[in-house]
Amino acid sequence: MDYLHENKRLKQQLSFSLEIDKEKNIFRQTSLSGHGRKENDAEHAWHMAIMAYILQEYANETVDIARCMLMCLIHDIVEIDAGDTYAYDARGLETQKEREDAAKERIFSMLPEDQKAFLISVFDEFEKNNTPEAKFAHAMDNLQPLLLNSSNNGGDWIEHDVTAKQVYGRQVKTREGSEVLYKVTDQILQEQIRKGNLKTEI
Amino acid sequence: MDYLHENKRLKQQLSFSLEIDKEKNIFRQTSLSGHGRKENDAEHAWHMAIMAYILQEYANETVDIARCMLMCLIHDIVEIDAGDTYAYDARGLETQKEREDAAKERIFSMLPEDQKAFLISVFDEFEKNNTPEAKFAHAMDNLQPLLLNSSNNGGDWIEHDVTAKQVYGRQVKTREGSEVLYKVTDQILQEQIRKGNLKTEI
Repeated sequence: MDYLHENKRLKQQLSFSLEIDKEKNIFRQTSLSGHGRKENDAEHAWHMAIMAYILQEYANETVDIARCMLMCLIHDIVEIDAGDTYAYDARGLETQKEREDAAKERIFSMLPEDQKAFLISVFDEFEKNNTPEAKFAHAMDNLQPLLLNSSNNGGDWIEHDVTAKQVYGRQVKTREGSEVLYKVTDQILQEQIRKGNLKTEI
Repeated sequence: MDYLHENKRLKQQLSFSLEIDKEKNIFRQTSLSGHGRKENDAEHAWHMAIMAYILQEYANETVDIARCMLMCLIHDIVEIDAGDTYAYDARGLETQKEREDAAKERIFSMLPEDQKAFLISVFDEFEKNNTPEAKFAHAMDNLQPLLLNSSNNGGDWIEHDVTAKQVYGRQVKTREGSEVLYKVTDQILQEQIRKGNLKTEI
């Protein structure tokens, strides 16, 4: 960006805006509906944010929907550097925090100080998961891939040899965000078990 | 979805949530930064929504940022049926409205009536472009691909033989949303013209 010499703040904001484009190249383990390709982080975040809006009435506690949507949109930005760590990858999960902390500092530092501080506070809130917005965003982070994967007859679980026990372990967070959506989650999982798409043995 | 017989409202909301996954398969004419592949509508919408948040201080009039972000997120949903119409495709633009109206009715009708009405109102507001939120969302709709394309030395313009006059014609909407961002747009375009990436002859 050779322009904008005279406006450092705007230059920082546009540099950050261009940088986050890279999130579209970070692919997840979830396949798109219709047995499609794997989805990427940006698509996942977009989907979560709309679902948060549509489903907000089911949050256990009232959520500030603008903050919750923003949280959904940025919660994976660190994966630009750190990569996606599959929810059931025990080894990857060990080093995840360290990798993501370094990424957080590098990427958000591209912004002006006030916006860096604010976006890190939203990002950290999601990680700490102790507010209504963070809990509901986590419910979306679980429900969105579950919706896709169950529409594909559990193909992602089969591919990664994931068990019902592992999946249920992760869904605890959905319950913290929404009892109603946890109940649906349970119905979806029971249906997938019945169909033989999710195995129950350990 | 064999579950949720007893909760029609939630079933509708989840069916809609699954349906919009298809937007990830609608590809645009903009290439990702780093001379990447073409981007799709969902990624574009995600990018616009974050940019709207980061750049909101430059809106000509104060915007309701939650509504503006939601508008960014859903503004292309009709393209699931209607496909993407390139901004400089004169023939496609002729039939665009008819195709998109039918899609709007089909897709939003999957939702409960109240949410259908609300999302259509947000969608129509974007199309009519007569509120601060719609004008700022349009500025993002222009600036986001401009940022990518200029980082790629104007490859998308060169591929489609687009002229500066055409590009400037479209940027009028950016000015309605943000004088500051229009000024940057002008700087970016002048730089691209100087570099020979955007031709000035008609």
